[in-house]
Amino acid sequence: MSDLPTITEELQPIVWQDGKLLLLDQTMLPASEEWMTVHDVTGAVEAIRSMRVRGAPAIGIVAAYAMAIAARSIEAPAMPAFLGELDAQAARLTAARPTAVNLGWAVQRCQGAARTCSTPDQAAAHVLALAHAMREQDIESNRSIGRNGATLMPDSGGVLTHCNTGALATAGYGTALGVIRAAWESGKRVRVFHTETRPWLQGARLTAWEFARLGIPATLLVDSAAGALMASGHVGAVVTGADRIAANGDTANKIGTYSLAALAAANGIPFYVAAPFSTVDPNVQSGADIPVEERPATEITSLAGQRIAAEGVEVWNPVFDVTPAGLIAAIITEHGVLRPPYEAGLHALVAQPEVTEVA
Amino acid sequence: MSDLPTITEELQPIVWQDGKLLLLDQTMLPASEEWMTVHDVTGAVEAIRSMRVRGAPAIGIVAAYAMAIAARSIEAPAMPAFLGELDAQAARLTAARPTAVNLGWAVQRCQGAARTCSTPDQAAAHVLALAHAMREQDIESNRSIGRNGATLMPDSGGVLTHCNTGALATAGYGTALGVIRAAWESGKRVRVFHTETRPWLQGARLTAWEFARLGIPATLLVDSAAGALMASGHVGAVVTGADRIAANGDTANKIGTYSLAALAAANGIPFYVAAPFSTVDPNVQSGADIPVEERPATEITSLAGQRIAAEGVEVWNPVFDVTPAGLIAAIITEHGVLRPPYEAGLHALVAQPEVTEVA
Repeated sequence: MSDLPTITEELQPIVWQDGKLLLLDQTMLPASEEWMTVHDVTGAVEAIRSMRVRGAPAIGIVAAYAMAIAARSIEAPAMPAFLGELDAQAARLTAARPTAVNLGWAVQRCQGAARTCSTPDQAAAHVLALAHAMREQDIESNRSIGRNGATLMPDSGGVLTHCNTGALATAGYGTALGVIRAAWESGKRVRVFHTETRPWLQGARLTAWEFARLGIPATLLVDSAAGALMASGHVGAVVTGADRIAANGDTANKIGTYSLAALAAANGIPFYVAAPFSTVDPNVQSGADIPVEERPATEITSLAGQRIAAEGVEVWNPVFDVTPAGLIAAIITEHGVLRPPYEAGLHALVAQPEVTEVA
Repeated sequence: MSDLPTITEELQPIVWQDGKLLLLDQTMLPASEEWMTVHDVTGAVEAIRSMRVRGAPAIGIVAAYAMAIAARSIEAPAMPAFLGELDAQAARLTAARPTAVNLGWAVQRCQGAARTCSTPDQAAAHVLALAHAMREQDIESNRSIGRNGATLMPDSGGVLTHCNTGALATAGYGTALGVIRAAWESGKRVRVFHTETRPWLQGARLTAWEFARLGIPATLLVDSAAGALMASGHVGAVVTGADRIAANGDTANKIGTYSLAALAAANGIPFYVAAPFSTVDPNVQSGADIPVEERPATEITSLAGQRIAAEGVEVWNPVFDVTPAGLIAAIITEHGVLRPPYEAGLHALVAQPEVTEVA
């Protein structure tokens, strides 16, 4: 269809066009590039739950746009009824996935923005403007994360990453993948390795696709080969994204991140987390307080509709794990590179209004 | 077909019946239980290469039967020509897969047995008798490994294993899986966890199937969730098999084993290797000297004939990794439990003729 966004050189998977929210459906990649339209909060929740859009920053932005769509569609004569209905939609969005903090953060900001307005129409316009601003700011933040993180990348050694943290996981450019990209763009000829990232295969399906589009050579391996790769001496740095960072620096991210961090420590390799500051949750003191989502067994027992596991087996399918702050050499944000101990550095940034407010 | 072996309570995937070698085709499990007939060395090499039979002990026994089939089919008037042709077949078998030492060990024993005979007919009968003996001894060894290892298992905590090391990987009973089974049979109510084991999914497909047959509850997880599981405090021991053990105790095993061992060390959990003594290669001083097979990229980029990875990605697909002896709390063999440092203990066992000769 000619009126759908074309995937430009600069990949941006979340597009507001002619008053509609369009998402590049990530369940269809890499086999086909299909755009879907989100019509309402129900559609946004479905897209987030079924991982048509995934990645902590990306689901935050989609949630903001979903709040804007909700705000425009609420038929309420005055603000109290309008805000009551908007809060109900906010609760549905926030419950879509429990671990990433960006989702709740984005929704709350939209609720706050609506409350500064005096009419529903004004609020709807304000929330949409905020969604646009958050989208733009996410791309800008990611470019800053990239610049800040690129300085930590080796000049020519291997870099290992996990899951997908590229443009597809954000509004554009990416976080950990953005760091690798920025290093490459700065002339560092890092050798990129990335895991396939079971069960959902974000690495094999999405990260490989993004690196191919960017023209950056990358080598795919199964998750369990990461240890052998590190032990081989071919990895100079490991960098991943984050779904939620506790006040003490403990970091929830895609299942397997903790393993990579522990294996990096065992092999004397620095392990970095790259994430926008909105990933920090000052209300959570440590990783023990971060809720970890478990997803259906079928993600492991079946693939592309085919049963792969023997019948009758029980399954444990946590989507995230928690990496203790002590295993993290640095947290790379758009506001700079934080070094351990993280508590003071994160607290100082949280206290700055210009860091926690967009506009 | 009624004349095929039925899968009895005691699973034995390698069967000699009516002068034919029958294998339970492991590429078809768990979807269907299909037996295939091996007619010659070419068929045995194909079965080993394409992993219709896999697991270091199992491929050793299949190789011995393949030598017996070869010996019966060689048309040579006298021993020199017979042995020349048998050695040529031996070389083809040994080259089928490079990492497991049992394969070369079994083939060499058959070559040696043939050399003690004065006629080709006698040699053919002797090699077949040796193959039978090796098969029987493997099952007996595994039962001993199970008994020896069961004492190391926790009384009721969690036990994590990797890949498939059960009856399917051996002539029967299994090695690491046999240890868990023996612990269960001795009344220890361990909670079993096992990885899916990418890329070939031996855990999801075969280990889950075996535990279900044995009536032992087991929980499947993706490889990268093993770290989080260990960090959760729910694992009291990790036990895996081995494809080759160097003289110093360094152990080559399924890719991901090193990661599990390092993660176990980081979490204060004992990591055990369970394998028949034939897995020890006294000619290899350390893990650095063990050849590690790499298999085709398509094992990672496709699944069940469907492309899953983005086009154009490079792939690193090592089948094994090497766990340094320092990470191994004990090596469980049919001759007892060895503790570090391993060099002396392994050397002493190698020096005992009754250990290295069957009959």
